[in-house]
Amino acid sequence: MFGTVLIANRGEIALRVARTCRELGIRTVVVHSAADEGTAPVRFADQAVRIGPAPAGRSYLNAAAVLQAALQTGAEAIHPGYGFLSENPDFAQMCEEAGLAFVGPPAGVLARLGDKAGALRAVAEAGLPVLPWSGGPVDGLAEARAAAAGIGYPLIVKAVAGGGGRGMAVVRDARDLPGAYARVRGTAAAVFGDDRLYLERYVEAARHVEVQVLADRHGAVVHLGARDCSVQRRHQKLVEESPVPGWRPEATERLCEAAVSAARATGYAGAGTFEFLAGPDGTFAFIEANCRIQVEHPVTEMVAGVDIVAEQLRVAAGLKLSFGQDDVRLRGAAIECRVNAEDPDRGFLPSPGRVERLALPGGPFVRVDGYLEHGLDVPAAYDPLLAKVVVWAHDRAAAIARMRRALSELTVEGPGLRTTAGFLPRVLTHPLFESGGHDTTLVDRMTREETP
Amino acid sequence: MFGTVLIANRGEIALRVARTCRELGIRTVVVHSAADEGTAPVRFADQAVRIGPAPAGRSYLNAAAVLQAALQTGAEAIHPGYGFLSENPDFAQMCEEAGLAFVGPPAGVLARLGDKAGALRAVAEAGLPVLPWSGGPVDGLAEARAAAAGIGYPLIVKAVAGGGGRGMAVVRDARDLPGAYARVRGTAAAVFGDDRLYLERYVEAARHVEVQVLADRHGAVVHLGARDCSVQRRHQKLVEESPVPGWRPEATERLCEAAVSAARATGYAGAGTFEFLAGPDGTFAFIEANCRIQVEHPVTEMVAGVDIVAEQLRVAAGLKLSFGQDDVRLRGAAIECRVNAEDPDRGFLPSPGRVERLALPGGPFVRVDGYLEHGLDVPAAYDPLLAKVVVWAHDRAAAIARMRRALSELTVEGPGLRTTAGFLPRVLTHPLFESGGHDTTLVDRMTREETP
Repeated sequence: MFGTVLIANRGEIALRVARTCRELGIRTVVVHSAADEGTAPVRFADQAVRIGPAPAGRSYLNAAAVLQAALQTGAEAIHPGYGFLSENPDFAQMCEEAGLAFVGPPAGVLARLGDKAGALRAVAEAGLPVLPWSGGPVDGLAEARAAAAGIGYPLIVKAVAGGGGRGMAVVRDARDLPGAYARVRGTAAAVFGDDRLYLERYVEAARHVEVQVLADRHGAVVHLGARDCSVQRRHQKLVEESPVPGWRPEATERLCEAAVSAARATGYAGAGTFEFLAGPDGTFAFIEANCRIQVEHPVTEMVAGVDIVAEQLRVAAGLKLSFGQDDVRLRGAAIECRVNAEDPDRGFLPSPGRVERLALPGGPFVRVDGYLEHGLDVPAAYDPLLAKVVVWAHDRAAAIARMRRALSELTVEGPGLRTTAGFLPRVLTHPLFESGGHDTTLVDRMTREETP
Repeated sequence: MFGTVLIANRGEIALRVARTCRELGIRTVVVHSAADEGTAPVRFADQAVRIGPAPAGRSYLNAAAVLQAALQTGAEAIHPGYGFLSENPDFAQMCEEAGLAFVGPPAGVLARLGDKAGALRAVAEAGLPVLPWSGGPVDGLAEARAAAAGIGYPLIVKAVAGGGGRGMAVVRDARDLPGAYARVRGTAAAVFGDDRLYLERYVEAARHVEVQVLADRHGAVVHLGARDCSVQRRHQKLVEESPVPGWRPEATERLCEAAVSAARATGYAGAGTFEFLAGPDGTFAFIEANCRIQVEHPVTEMVAGVDIVAEQLRVAAGLKLSFGQDDVRLRGAAIECRVNAEDPDRGFLPSPGRVERLALPGGPFVRVDGYLEHGLDVPAAYDPLLAKVVVWAHDRAAAIARMRRALSELTVEGPGLRTTAGFLPRVLTHPLFESGGHDTTLVDRMTREETP
């Protein structure tokens, strides 16, 4: 196992990774921006290196600065967390060339799966169902129109390099295609530095389900069951859970086997997620792969009893996974709620501020992953995730009740600071969520229900 | 299930019980002393009733005041937590007569097992091994001397009504018997209002192991595996874990079956613990039964995936346990560390004070049960338990590493306040503890090791 690992991330995931490193006896170096000076992960790490100011482009996305910090501090590996450099094949390649282990799949796999059009093609070739799509990136509006005619409406325009809910637009009518095309292309160029787009059939009332996969470099590929992430607002997940509510074990097994096949076919290594849209009839279609640890990984950890970050580190160090598929026993149900610095009463507008009153939930089967503390000035420069409240219980109804209890203990307040903490219980008590019959339209539906 | 439950306790266990009640949709009333005004459980409960000042004799031990509060607030049941009225058969009887469910075993069982001499007799009759003992309470010093001659030295003088590590003394030489006898008798009379004593063989280097049992009033008795509580200082547990380190499953199974037999033979109902001393050769002898939820119950909850308080409430409401023995799957290893307001550098002297700097651990597989918050004035009137840090991992070595990580995140500081937080990592890194080869002499041994 590594002696020193550099963590190229911030906030809750930097602390999450550092916690497992400490448990494994690994020394941690965290790089950080000036805006994150003094935050919990920066203090928790054994060493901290300031690599630049906010925004991320001048620090967390500065591959050269990250590599330099790693080399200067004697790190043997870099854990990129999620976002930032985590799915950047060039960065993975640079690590390799510098003699550093990149905690993630090999650069070649990142290139293949990170290009969403390439991923669709590879996965379709592996025999998995995909939605009708443009078959690759479209070159210009005319080609987009032609592809759209074949796919039909509604469809979704997506950036090949997109992720985290950004770089996509739903188009319901041919007349709206040009505007959406131009808009997504602009975002893709600005955010991802890659303006290639593709088109895919849009499924109106689908379930967003995904499979957590772990693969080592010795041929082992295992899955840790499926998550449902259908509670989304503008493709941003708000509440995630495992297992998928209402699904019979056979349906989950079919999905998980599909994900394992896809991981095998693409030469995957490390922790990854294969995402699918699922219809109420149990059919499903692959939509994309996430080649990194995901925000919602704790729900899987709680049902599987596995530390996914520890397995990531093992794989990156060339070790075998610490267990096989037959050892995996999924137990009970887990739910995660994201506490974001966003104001639900003002269209989820980012609302960072200073934490002056703070109480985090505790007690049986409650886990909090976050970087909140008294006096934290939530930086405005980054994604608004403050904390994840995760609960486990023997079944879904008990998990919902436990989450409502846990959220009733949560206080995150301060000048200017607004959070999603008050919105989350409304999701949990919505009849559609409670019944498990919800789909990705739930949050929109809730918003409409409020507007008389 | 009950509509309203009154919680007749304070601190972490009052909050623990209230959390499960809220999850089950049960309204909570907490009674409290003036010293506990405004503490977390008092604010968390749906209703709070102040029943008197500290010390406990004028509030938490005032059975009449507790009953009156229950009747006035429409409670249907009383959860006594641990300590205080939890094992008082008269109080259980009073509840019954007032038409209130007592969350614990029936008064008759409490009377039989709470009388430690009676418990030893009952359990020996059920065929379980017990240590050589006086066969019942001894009437005066002469009878004690005669019994001691038969038992041999070292022996332990114990109060029939004792508990929580109080009301006992080890005697290594016949010359010390009169002094120990007088001392324990005085404590027993003062603390428990019952000066009856019995004598039992003292096992010098034994393991303290115990079995968590759950029984309903429909004939079901299940166990949730065994805990090791050998890390003790003056019979006060400091660190607890499950399963018992180094034990083969057959050894645990034999112990658990003995506990289930004892529970059946004594007509047990609710959650209870059967405590044993175990030798290095795998032999064991019953020492006492604890007829209540125990401080260390979370380690069992984490390996079994069961909410023990929820099962207690089910049983008290006349429902069946929610699972059978065949459904119990014990997974991995869990450890609990008690954070007490005691100064390890001054002989564990109680050191309450005001909490001014506070950080609690979080992240994967970490649970904190406590009532700590910024600004809490730890009352001096009660037992010094502030919080329990509990971790789970796939095996014991990983659990120890995780606990060390969790404790590294813990800060509880303020004027006058000293805690065991700094002492606990020294237990976890002690070679005897790490190897799992420790026994109840570990903490004494550590103290000696420090004194050159």
